[in-house]
Amino acid sequence: MTKSADLLLINAIVLTMDEEMHQYEPGAVAVSGDSVLAVGPEAEVRKACPAAQVVDCGGKVLMPGLVNAHTHVPMTLMRGLADDLRLDVWLQGYMWPVEREFVSPDFVRLGTQLACAELIRTGVTCFADMYFFEENVAKATAEAGLRAVCGQSVLKFPAPDAVSFEDSLAAAREFIEHWKGHTLITPSVAPHAPYTCTPEILRATAQLAAEFDVPLQIHIAETALEVENMRRENGMPVVPYVKKQGLFDAKVLAAHCIHIDEGEMHTLLHAGAGVAHNPSSNLKLASGFAPIQKMLNLGLNVGIGTDGSASNNDLDMFEEVRLAAFVAKTVSNDPTAVPAATALKMATRLGARALHLGPVTGSLEPGKRADLILVDISPLHNSPRFRHDANNVYSQLVYAGKASDVVDVMVNGKWLMHNHELLTLNEKELTAAAQEYARKIDTFLIAREQSVFSKLVALGGSAEEESFEVQVKVKLNDPAPVLKALKKTEIEILLKKHYHQHDIYFTFADPAQGWLRYREDEMIDDKEQITGVRGRLTLIGPSREGDFAHDVLLSRIRYFAPAANSLRFYREYFKPASETAVEKDRLRWLVRYKNEEFFINLDRVETPDLGYYLEIKSRTWSRRDAEEKANCSSELILLLGGSLENTITQDYVEIAGEEK
Amino acid sequence: MTKSADLLLINAIVLTMDEEMHQYEPGAVAVSGDSVLAVGPEAEVRKACPAAQVVDCGGKVLMPGLVNAHTHVPMTLMRGLADDLRLDVWLQGYMWPVEREFVSPDFVRLGTQLACAELIRTGVTCFADMYFFEENVAKATAEAGLRAVCGQSVLKFPAPDAVSFEDSLAAAREFIEHWKGHTLITPSVAPHAPYTCTPEILRATAQLAAEFDVPLQIHIAETALEVENMRRENGMPVVPYVKKQGLFDAKVLAAHCIHIDEGEMHTLLHAGAGVAHNPSSNLKLASGFAPIQKMLNLGLNVGIGTDGSASNNDLDMFEEVRLAAFVAKTVSNDPTAVPAATALKMATRLGARALHLGPVTGSLEPGKRADLILVDISPLHNSPRFRHDANNVYSQLVYAGKASDVVDVMVNGKWLMHNHELLTLNEKELTAAAQEYARKIDTFLIAREQSVFSKLVALGGSAEEESFEVQVKVKLNDPAPVLKALKKTEIEILLKKHYHQHDIYFTFADPAQGWLRYREDEMIDDKEQITGVRGRLTLIGPSREGDFAHDVLLSRIRYFAPAANSLRFYREYFKPASETAVEKDRLRWLVRYKNEEFFINLDRVETPDLGYYLEIKSRTWSRRDAEEKANCSSELILLLGGSLENTITQDYVEIAGEEK
Repeated sequence: MTKSADLLLINAIVLTMDEEMHQYEPGAVAVSGDSVLAVGPEAEVRKACPAAQVVDCGGKVLMPGLVNAHTHVPMTLMRGLADDLRLDVWLQGYMWPVEREFVSPDFVRLGTQLACAELIRTGVTCFADMYFFEENVAKATAEAGLRAVCGQSVLKFPAPDAVSFEDSLAAAREFIEHWKGHTLITPSVAPHAPYTCTPEILRATAQLAAEFDVPLQIHIAETALEVENMRRENGMPVVPYVKKQGLFDAKVLAAHCIHIDEGEMHTLLHAGAGVAHNPSSNLKLASGFAPIQKMLNLGLNVGIGTDGSASNNDLDMFEEVRLAAFVAKTVSNDPTAVPAATALKMATRLGARALHLGPVTGSLEPGKRADLILVDISPLHNSPRFRHDANNVYSQLVYAGKASDVVDVMVNGKWLMHNHELLTLNEKELTAAAQEYARKIDTFLIAREQSVFSKLVALGGSAEEESFEVQVKVKLNDPAPVLKALKKTEIEILLKKHYHQHDIYFTFADPAQGWLRYREDEMIDDKEQITGVRGRLTLIGPSREGDFAHDVLLSRIRYFAPAANSLRFYREYFKPASETAVEKDRLRWLVRYKNEEFFINLDRVETPDLGYYLEIKSRTWSRRDAEEKANCSSELILLLGGSLENTITQDYVEIAGEEK
Repeated sequence: MTKSADLLLINAIVLTMDEEMHQYEPGAVAVSGDSVLAVGPEAEVRKACPAAQVVDCGGKVLMPGLVNAHTHVPMTLMRGLADDLRLDVWLQGYMWPVEREFVSPDFVRLGTQLACAELIRTGVTCFADMYFFEENVAKATAEAGLRAVCGQSVLKFPAPDAVSFEDSLAAAREFIEHWKGHTLITPSVAPHAPYTCTPEILRATAQLAAEFDVPLQIHIAETALEVENMRRENGMPVVPYVKKQGLFDAKVLAAHCIHIDEGEMHTLLHAGAGVAHNPSSNLKLASGFAPIQKMLNLGLNVGIGTDGSASNNDLDMFEEVRLAAFVAKTVSNDPTAVPAATALKMATRLGARALHLGPVTGSLEPGKRADLILVDISPLHNSPRFRHDANNVYSQLVYAGKASDVVDVMVNGKWLMHNHELLTLNEKELTAAAQEYARKIDTFLIAREQSVFSKLVALGGSAEEESFEVQVKVKLNDPAPVLKALKKTEIEILLKKHYHQHDIYFTFADPAQGWLRYREDEMIDDKEQITGVRGRLTLIGPSREGDFAHDVLLSRIRYFAPAANSLRFYREYFKPASETAVEKDRLRWLVRYKNEEFFINLDRVETPDLGYYLEIKSRTWSRRDAEEKANCSSELILLLGGSLENTITQDYVEIAGEEK
């Protein structure tokens, strides 16, 4: 019985990527409407399916289009923005500030179009995306003609497209209602990660996805730190935790899964969850080696993804497939692990299944949508061709094939690229518009990089206001008289604290930047026990704002905030020219003297070993007030037994610098 | 003062890759003859060096050509021949048999030309090669116009171009004498590896290289097994061992160096040796992760190489550079390790130094040869471009750049590629000729794969001749009577042995292939101590050649040899359909009976637990002789207390198979 087709693709090396990995050479594929009608040896298909149009594939490989199982397409606009940084510096120092400033529906639309152009060029016919303003990702993708699972992101923090997670959730519901049933777009909800979502968000997103029977996307166990924190805070690794929140009520696509154990793999398997493996991103961010050989052995549907271009820095699935095979071999100390055919299966059939689109795409089989590509395996860099083994052709594609060897791309029965020419997107316009965004972002970053202060502000978080400080400091030989003098009635003690302070001062090539001080305060109680540690970040102005009698100084604190990140973070983010360590023991009193409040610091500077100092400090907001407080400070010094003959105008960091 | 140039390249993003990593945009390079005359900002260079010819680079990156620090260019003809195999199976099962059959001056010439075309296309201007018939590599490379260090290989085994190492050494001397002083070709000698060379070879090659002051190339510490063997056999790791042989009298280029410790790195540093890092090959063959961050920290000149296309499977340095950065990050758990600029430095300046060509190439500096490339960083897959940081451009090249973005290539002041078109090689002719070789190799391999026997023969090594065996076997309830009967005067005992035998029988889908038996004999002395172990490989013919009275059988041993490799090797090489284990304790006597020699085996089969068997065996070369021996065998069975009522015609493997 013959069935008439719309299009017959003949004279191809057909790789079906079906369960039995059938190959036909010369093979043919018959397409009817949006679907594959028949696949097989050329002569058979020609006989069974006469078609109006016959295309000679010239001996190219005809195979299912690649499935990019995890990406953030709008981030293509941030390709190469910042690299070779640790995850926290990269995210908090660059990605988030730029996203806060620039991400908009227009940004998302353009980024998606740019990405779609690259995806089509590199043989991808289907991808899974998570980002903000996902409505615009879906629209641009559908217009470009690609198939995608589009996930509206939900986080516990304010996002570029929502001030609260309730807003994100409402947007996700609306998004899913709008796109549900679309030929190309499968809407989805994407709680970003367990550590950026509350348990309520995880539960609510799972219920939403289950209600509409759409996939749920999430980042799982991307770093060892995430797992460590999860164990400490919740007493279990990541997968059991999300299971407890009911996440697997939904069809889950879990990205990364680098640091999961065999028990967690079983949980994912039983939940029918798909996994997206992202070798380039995992390597570039030093996240680790995902145990994909084990996952595959268990029968998990492990797809391959590029992750976003900001961390990869491209959407080239040919590289990802090769890397998936390469890395699996060395990590399992076995060059036979993840052979070429398996790697290619991950990028096609298994990827489609991971996206919960198994029945729709991922292999060339009658009834599935016609999502296919033609790849030239005859260029110089892929010559010669061996044929003694059925695996030779997979080897060619995986180990020597390049994305630029993709010649034609069809999705849903429609050509998107023909003979290297994009049919649905205008590359020239897109790259020009992208360059305009890059120019603006460069301007923003260059302005920010010009001062330590603006880099600090860019980090976000709550900083205290600018303030001026009146201070006077004297060297002491013996602290005992001070302790005794503090009992005088003129001085009312309001508070007493004892700290051990570890300071690191960053200095910069340009002295006008001042000093950035990272301080760890160990708080010490009456029994000399450490009761707590806090980190503080202070940007100290470079120059004195004023000088009063007896070397009483007016200095400016430009920025003062809790240090939310580690010393290492600030070191990598600010790249100081040099560092100086100062360590001291501080007794600190808040006192009232002549109706004004003052801080009295009795310091023993241990690193470098400088001995005892007495310091009087007071915050002020006006120059006249400063004048008055300067006088009182001098009086206090004398009252506490210090001498105004040997006042010190330098900060400890300056004295320490001279000692070096 | 102005100096006139032959050619001025203007309007480029010039990356000098010099010590200070100078960049100029818009920058220019002036070329005079074969050398760089000036590099700098466009306006300055234009003013200082007027030139007859000015080329507008259209805003492309102008940088030194890439240096491929380790490869085997003729192996490009074996790209994709066999993949996803363990090193020994890949080498002994595929590479060596094919090389024995096909490698000739013509093969080497064509493979080199094919490789040169790919190298030029991918922006390589200089490479280090080791292979056979290196004269032909050098000639083809010089004709193509590329710069190379060409190493004539020396091994302790016969090679395609020499029956003995003395011949190789003589050829190396002649080769060096011939090419010494050539503009493009630096001749070199290449003792393959410490484990494939004798100490004499290492000494002789080092002396030869030192005599002519040319580089010596060698593979060092590529696998953990190599180091393990070296430690066991010589009590030290690889680098101290080669040092002891005087290797560092020469300028050494050491490839791989995966499994070396910090002491060895210091030795290499002090010896002025260069290191070639091969990330793709190391991953694909699961050789391990080379500690390149440590080597770089110490100040070693670490270049990057592709290795041969048979194991990579291409010569794409863009991929290698990216991979060098990626892998270093994850292995050192630090995404800031080997940043883009460092990776690119390895592929240019450090690579040239590793090849001992530092003063000649590797950076754009006045006086160095004009080895340069133009790279387009504006294609879709590399858009947009950020410029807020000097490192952005290195990121673009390393993390998103593709070999296909190389537009023009110049070596020694001469264009080899212009606007993607090769000027010194004919790609079409080369790929056609390469395909002809692939066809022949396919035919050879397909013929070989058709029988287990031919695959065995392809492994090489000394196999014993075919022989026929007369055998009769009976089941015993009690072995004691046999031991007593052996004292009868009719039987003269010539030898007695005691073995514990572990057999694995491979069976194949086609029963006509017979059984392949891998046996480990534990030899046991009178005190029941194991005195030695030997491995034997036996191909047992599938059918009986004849049947005599009382089930005396004539069977054929088709192949019988010491097992030079592991069980794992043979399993991966022969890919049996199934395996059966048989374990037994064997007392074996060589006896003379009626002037004929017979083997008497008294077996206790332990796995599966089958009990005692008595077996009489005798080798024979003629059917008449077989007839006589069959009769004697039956007599012996009776003489030893066995009964001919219950003779067994099956091999143990068959009985074991039934037991399963």
